[in-house]
Amino acid sequence: MPKVKVAGFSVSLDGFAAGTAQSLEHPLGLRGEEMFHWFFPTRTFRQMLGKDDGDTGPDDDFARRSMQNFGAFILGRNMFGPVRGEWPDHQWKGWWGDNPPYHAPTFVLTHYPRPPVEMEGGTTFHFVTGGIAEALQRAREAAGARDVKIGGGVETVRQTIQAGHVDEIHLALAPVALGRGEALFSGLDLRALGYRTVEHVPTGRATHIVLAR
Amino acid sequence: MPKVKVAGFSVSLDGFAAGTAQSLEHPLGLRGEEMFHWFFPTRTFRQMLGKDDGDTGPDDDFARRSMQNFGAFILGRNMFGPVRGEWPDHQWKGWWGDNPPYHAPTFVLTHYPRPPVEMEGGTTFHFVTGGIAEALQRAREAAGARDVKIGGGVETVRQTIQAGHVDEIHLALAPVALGRGEALFSGLDLRALGYRTVEHVPTGRATHIVLAR
Repeated sequence: MPKVKVAGFSVSLDGFAAGTAQSLEHPLGLRGEEMFHWFFPTRTFRQMLGKDDGDTGPDDDFARRSMQNFGAFILGRNMFGPVRGEWPDHQWKGWWGDNPPYHAPTFVLTHYPRPPVEMEGGTTFHFVTGGIAEALQRAREAAGARDVKIGGGVETVRQTIQAGHVDEIHLALAPVALGRGEALFSGLDLRALGYRTVEHVPTGRATHIVLAR
Repeated sequence: MPKVKVAGFSVSLDGFAAGTAQSLEHPLGLRGEEMFHWFFPTRTFRQMLGKDDGDTGPDDDFARRSMQNFGAFILGRNMFGPVRGEWPDHQWKGWWGDNPPYHAPTFVLTHYPRPPVEMEGGTTFHFVTGGIAEALQRAREAAGARDVKIGGGVETVRQTIQAGHVDEIHLALAPVALGRGEALFSGLDLRALGYRTVEHVPTGRATHIVLAR
């Protein structure tokens, strides 16, 4: 039975999953990249950059799990780009470059319709105006026997967890305080929603926790 | 130069430092004890119970550091007991038993005066009605060359950190979601307050982080 997952989701020790002041120059927000120090040196990430190096081990295992075996992705609009309101320019195709890391149908939540955008490497961005329910239905159909990943951002992850759509959550707790940013857990009662810790793998760069219900 | 520290302070992965519904039967609140699974098996804690067993290793090292070399403690009133308002009964001497784990002058923040209570093992509870400033001054004097520990609860820790009184914070991040309880980080911008991670020691039971400024 295919699952809906949040995976490779980095959180600071004080519970922020993105920094403030997200922009074209800082897609993760100010200081947001500090939460990904476990990810950047992994072989999985280095291969995404076209490099044939990088570390293996538990961080890499979680990095690989967070990108592989997903048949479709769902993203909040901020994960596509910083544009708000009507699409001013169909030429700009998101901040992931020509070959985004999804390599699968990727459903972008937005209030503003736009034709699908086919990228290199198998990623096609579909713009969904019917909300998370429509996105989940289309993503599940597209994914077939594979899992669906809620790719972010923080508010999309929060809303899909709150609505009971998410079967499994992999968090990478970074050993840094971010101070401010988008709080992941605020108002989210993971226990009442039925989640329990099913994996706990600490490394020198992050503490990996998998919650499931 | 003696320091003011928070130490051995357990936090759930979703940022709660105590459970809900604190009571005589559940001093840590419901589910609160789940955050202390790193602490209970340690040799330090077992010795506090009068047992000559328990695990050594990094969890025990942090347990020991969290109780030793403190010349005075400061506690919010909830850490002494669940009583609110005027002291109804001077016979009840807190929920730590006859021999509390402090073994040093321990200053309890309260709005209601009460004579000091001398316990076994070197702990004397002093009831401070002049707020955190008076408590810090008296604790520093009492501690002399040794450090002062802010022993909790959550609100007292939050307020002393926010007011800039705390030099060092040791958090033990537990690999469990608590769902609800007293949130430690809410509204607390540790970065703006100058804190940086200076130690990161993950174990199979907790991720130990020391923040300093």
